[in-house]
Amino acid sequence: MKSYKSLLLCSALSGLLFTACNSETEKKAPTESPKTTEYKPFPFKLPKEKPAQPLSRAMERNYDTYKASRPEDNELYTQFKYTELKGFDYNNHDGTISRRDPSKVIFENGKYYVYYTYRETETSPKGAKASTETIPSADWDLAEIWYATSEDGFTWEEQGVAIPRPPKPQLGHRSVSTADILKWNGKFYMYYQGFSEASGTRGDDCPVLMSYADSPDGPWTPTNKVVIPNGPKDTWDQYSIHDPYPLVHNGKIYLYYKSDFDGQPDLVRMQGLAIATDPAGPFTKSPLNPVLASGHETTMFPFKEGIAALTIRDGNEHYTVQYAEDGENFDVAAIVELMPAAAGPFIPDAFTDTDYGRGITWGLSHFTNATTWAQNHAVLVRFDCDLSLDVNDPAMKKHHVYHRPDVYYRQGLGQKQRERIAKENEALRNK
Amino acid sequence: MKSYKSLLLCSALSGLLFTACNSETEKKAPTESPKTTEYKPFPFKLPKEKPAQPLSRAMERNYDTYKASRPEDNELYTQFKYTELKGFDYNNHDGTISRRDPSKVIFENGKYYVYYTYRETETSPKGAKASTETIPSADWDLAEIWYATSEDGFTWEEQGVAIPRPPKPQLGHRSVSTADILKWNGKFYMYYQGFSEASGTRGDDCPVLMSYADSPDGPWTPTNKVVIPNGPKDTWDQYSIHDPYPLVHNGKIYLYYKSDFDGQPDLVRMQGLAIATDPAGPFTKSPLNPVLASGHETTMFPFKEGIAALTIRDGNEHYTVQYAEDGENFDVAAIVELMPAAAGPFIPDAFTDTDYGRGITWGLSHFTNATTWAQNHAVLVRFDCDLSLDVNDPAMKKHHVYHRPDVYYRQGLGQKQRERIAKENEALRNK
Repeated sequence: MKSYKSLLLCSALSGLLFTACNSETEKKAPTESPKTTEYKPFPFKLPKEKPAQPLSRAMERNYDTYKASRPEDNELYTQFKYTELKGFDYNNHDGTISRRDPSKVIFENGKYYVYYTYRETETSPKGAKASTETIPSADWDLAEIWYATSEDGFTWEEQGVAIPRPPKPQLGHRSVSTADILKWNGKFYMYYQGFSEASGTRGDDCPVLMSYADSPDGPWTPTNKVVIPNGPKDTWDQYSIHDPYPLVHNGKIYLYYKSDFDGQPDLVRMQGLAIATDPAGPFTKSPLNPVLASGHETTMFPFKEGIAALTIRDGNEHYTVQYAEDGENFDVAAIVELMPAAAGPFIPDAFTDTDYGRGITWGLSHFTNATTWAQNHAVLVRFDCDLSLDVNDPAMKKHHVYHRPDVYYRQGLGQKQRERIAKENEALRNK
Repeated sequence: MKSYKSLLLCSALSGLLFTACNSETEKKAPTESPKTTEYKPFPFKLPKEKPAQPLSRAMERNYDTYKASRPEDNELYTQFKYTELKGFDYNNHDGTISRRDPSKVIFENGKYYVYYTYRETETSPKGAKASTETIPSADWDLAEIWYATSEDGFTWEEQGVAIPRPPKPQLGHRSVSTADILKWNGKFYMYYQGFSEASGTRGDDCPVLMSYADSPDGPWTPTNKVVIPNGPKDTWDQYSIHDPYPLVHNGKIYLYYKSDFDGQPDLVRMQGLAIATDPAGPFTKSPLNPVLASGHETTMFPFKEGIAALTIRDGNEHYTVQYAEDGENFDVAAIVELMPAAAGPFIPDAFTDTDYGRGITWGLSHFTNATTWAQNHAVLVRFDCDLSLDVNDPAMKKHHVYHRPDVYYRQGLGQKQRERIAKENEALRNK
């Protein structure tokens, strides 16, 4: 049994000290002091607030870590629904046209806009060694930033190029990709990856470039400068600054990004923050970077007083929605599934410098390698969710995606695994 | 920047006080005091141990909460692979035969044994109202415990009934289901749900019954007594004690179970622990119950000094593997995906009273509603994983299941959702 006295003492001390000895403690001090330590069976009705009785560590977390005692009441818990988009041609999905890495969706001039990596090449990607001036190495090699508009978010009209590849030897001459947009003082700023060599040559190396425009339809003027530079030698973002993702927060530009690092044996993906008061910079990187130790592509949005993030695919905390009141120190807010890859949500208050973000309900994401490796290309897709304070859709708050058995059977054993298992069976019989 | 002095002070105080003001603090005190608070960019090589520099809260957790700084090095992180079983007939999957809720797999007499809920009825389940003495309400109604044996874990020979339904009015006369097995002092003990009314009549109400045998082939002798009783009125396990799951730990029988409670609007599923020194009881429930605030069916195994649990499907911490050194206070050890439902692993040291559990690599689980609701029935399936200290299979440690687009598209919007979206689009245009 835990001691009530030492509990009180510690509560009092932590209040006085106001320290950060443990990040969880700082944030998650018990909301209410237990009134008794006597044994009492847990009640039949799940209490909304933490009950005053000894609890298991898992139950403590259920109240201290999460926004609600059940996922369905948690504003940062959701399922994701997916809808095929209309209006995009993929050349019979032969791999010569790819659309991926959508920007945030914005609403301007009475319609939705989205910007994305567009590749149209004579072949599908062939890897760095086989790449030429016209044969792409990776799906985002030899790409431009294109854009499309939509009345309803389901059917899109492609408008053509927004940011073309600049001529050699300008920065980004090999490929410009993975754009995201900022609206600031009535003007538009596009941040994107600028490649000067084929992705895969050393790694996936690029800094971030920026172009600006008076209208979401352009024309876009490149500054031809590195706006988010790579870090110094031997630091986590020395080679790649991927997925630049600007939001307006606390009156400033908060730009999140991903870097790939280490690579022995596997690449590590983490995410950083850089802050500026001018879209052209200078951007100051957070001294706490990486601010997210998990995730792949960046997807953030203003939520209540802080910033929420979709943390997908990689790292110990993949498949979570995280939240940071200060935009830098993220906590896990929910564990979710079937998350959108490289999501660009529609965020009504992305640029309003809101002091109470309302959340998101939809956006675009992508499916990479949408058919086969020989025809490797990505397609854009719409996702819907309920991560919004303005929507309450119980159908989006179910606990569990029920997959048909075939989804599981597709995850089958390999030959080496079957051989290991046969050996283990044999060893057991001979024991 | 956080203050180094207050950090030291707080560390010292928490050491002195030895309190439990926050369960995370108690367990997760930083392993090493930072040696500097000076800004230093995060290194390119991901450190294996927490580096001595200011870190974001997410990065602190990456070292303090998880067993390794990357999932692929975490012994409690895994992917799951699935293989169809051979040897079971399902009457052309017409819903009249169901096999579900496999017990742990045990190895005896040179072969594997598994026990499971077997239903063979004239129709598929029809709900409580339409149920009769021969028409089942739920998939686990009018069921018996059957068993099968296997040489290799893939092809199974069904051996027939282990525990039949006892005659009315004995406990469990309506259905016996969801068994699990204990080996204790050379004898075998089967724990199972004993229904005296059709599931769905009030809820899914049952206590736990037990039968024993000298051999895994039986014959099984029922004690005809409630061995794990429901809790008092208005407490979380007053109605159902599901999925009894015995292990030997600390020289005692640790029996985990699930209960469904609340139900307004949704059932809450949490898991409890009951401990005994004799298979016939009495079992003493943990005063900290529920010990798991998330999950659905029980799946635990001895791991290192403690107990690990697969926490599936329901609750804030669904899709996690958790670990409790004391078997009662669980921490999240890993976030995983495509977890096996109702898994019964093969646990070589389940009953050896090991002081350093080695983990698991495979078992059986089930797919419920394997075809359509009209033909509702479940099938048994084999899962494989690497949650074992004795195996290191990088192919099981990938970060992410890559699903084909069709898996996402199956999660489509409903009509009501499309109507809401159309209204939101309209409102935005008229703004």
